[in-house]
Amino acid sequence: MGETSLRELLGVKPGPVDLRTIDTRATPGDPGGKEKATAAREQTGRALADLQEQMFAMAAVEDSPKRLLLVLQGMDASGKDGAIKRGLGGMNPKWMHVKGFEAPTEEEARHHFLWRIRREVPAPGIVGVFDRSHYEDVLVVRVYSLVPEDVWQPRFEEINAFERELADDGVAIVKVFLHISRDYQLERQIRRLERVDKRWKFNEADIDDREHWDEFRTAYEEVFERCNTPWAPWYIVPADRKWYRMWAVSQLVKETLEGMRLHSPERRELDIPRLLERLRDS
Amino acid sequence: MGETSLRELLGVKPGPVDLRTIDTRATPGDPGGKEKATAAREQTGRALADLQEQMFAMAAVEDSPKRLLLVLQGMDASGKDGAIKRGLGGMNPKWMHVKGFEAPTEEEARHHFLWRIRREVPAPGIVGVFDRSHYEDVLVVRVYSLVPEDVWQPRFEEINAFERELADDGVAIVKVFLHISRDYQLERQIRRLERVDKRWKFNEADIDDREHWDEFRTAYEEVFERCNTPWAPWYIVPADRKWYRMWAVSQLVKETLEGMRLHSPERRELDIPRLLERLRDS
Repeated sequence: MGETSLRELLGVKPGPVDLRTIDTRATPGDPGGKEKATAAREQTGRALADLQEQMFAMAAVEDSPKRLLLVLQGMDASGKDGAIKRGLGGMNPKWMHVKGFEAPTEEEARHHFLWRIRREVPAPGIVGVFDRSHYEDVLVVRVYSLVPEDVWQPRFEEINAFERELADDGVAIVKVFLHISRDYQLERQIRRLERVDKRWKFNEADIDDREHWDEFRTAYEEVFERCNTPWAPWYIVPADRKWYRMWAVSQLVKETLEGMRLHSPERRELDIPRLLERLRDS
Repeated sequence: MGETSLRELLGVKPGPVDLRTIDTRATPGDPGGKEKATAAREQTGRALADLQEQMFAMAAVEDSPKRLLLVLQGMDASGKDGAIKRGLGGMNPKWMHVKGFEAPTEEEARHHFLWRIRREVPAPGIVGVFDRSHYEDVLVVRVYSLVPEDVWQPRFEEINAFERELADDGVAIVKVFLHISRDYQLERQIRRLERVDKRWKFNEADIDDREHWDEFRTAYEEVFERCNTPWAPWYIVPADRKWYRMWAVSQLVKETLEGMRLHSPERRELDIPRLLERLRDS
């Protein structure tokens, strides 16, 4: 990695974004190809485990409000499940809260779009993951005109205010877009139909989404322009290469945790010599 | 492993159990020492991931009620956290629900002891883990006389009935006791005090528990005699060796999942040639 952090390399820059200019097969910050990236991910996994434990310990012992929220977005077959399973591999699932957001239920649909989201914000000390998120309310909702524009337009600001509120409350937010090409998606969707162990994920609506590719792209571009904030930055991860996207997610999460100034609580209130004596006598 | 499953080797046999006769450093079914066990666990992790995905797919696509519940018990410092993080490594945390049970809150204490447990039973398709469980209500509660004997005595039968109900509802239950020696616990507790990264877990009440070692042992022995049922078997895992206990947990969970007759849903309702054509034209 040298001097430049992956957060710098992949972070969205201010101003308009054109996803067509970002190569989906690129590997910025590449630790040296597939094998080295896999080995690096192994090591990152151990670091993630330690950082996660520190964060949980701070909440348990010091009432620290700190926690992490990874928001994962991407077109169908962009590898979100693998990014969770492998990119966060090494973490203890006991201190994680992973929530997949599907189309809202009837009850959810009767509430403000952030209502169901707020209920899933991780507790202090916990690593939260949103597999899709409140961003669907300015993406799929917009592409299919599920609500009128004067309803979804103000949502960009509402999202920024909501995320600001979370950040003020100790939530470090890291938002990742897994950026694949339309061709790569085709390959993966075909494989999903052909392989019986992958077929359960197939959903014909995903072909509809594919036919609205450019509208989704435009909708994402507006998200990156309007909802990339200092307190909740967006990262665009080129994702046609599985090894790269898994490595990049683990690295971005690690860098974010490192930026949180975590530590192991010292517990100065403990009289260690006395306790050691009591233990040895017990 | 040869012919004998680890479930057979570690499963509690009918009749009285004397934990003092079970060597905490033993390695029944040992795949060939530490290095081989670690490699075997790596491979088991991949199998666990596939089996977990099948189970989730069956729930999502076929409304299958099948799910898994791993109940972990053991004295303080017996390695429950590591068994979750490493023994279930490879699984997708999105399809897991891990719940640690501590001393009941005031609200929980006002309810039947199974009330808070029922709320955490995994949904169909999900791998549930209880880090401590309803068994504390016949263990710690008994050792410290937190309720009178005529309250905790009937609980063995209530637990069997409850677990039977879960099993009838599609829950495959696997109950693991991590069996450590008093000396090994001392070593680990000293280390916990000495190492600042482990110190957050220290709790002086754990020294009290240590001073009631034999009463806990007797209470566990009665659990194994009375709550080891065909629908919710107990396994005693010798746990003084970290590599063995992590391997054994992954292996027991794998064998349990294999016994559930899982499969990838075929989705005969899909007209695959038509869908492939639609995809390729899209």
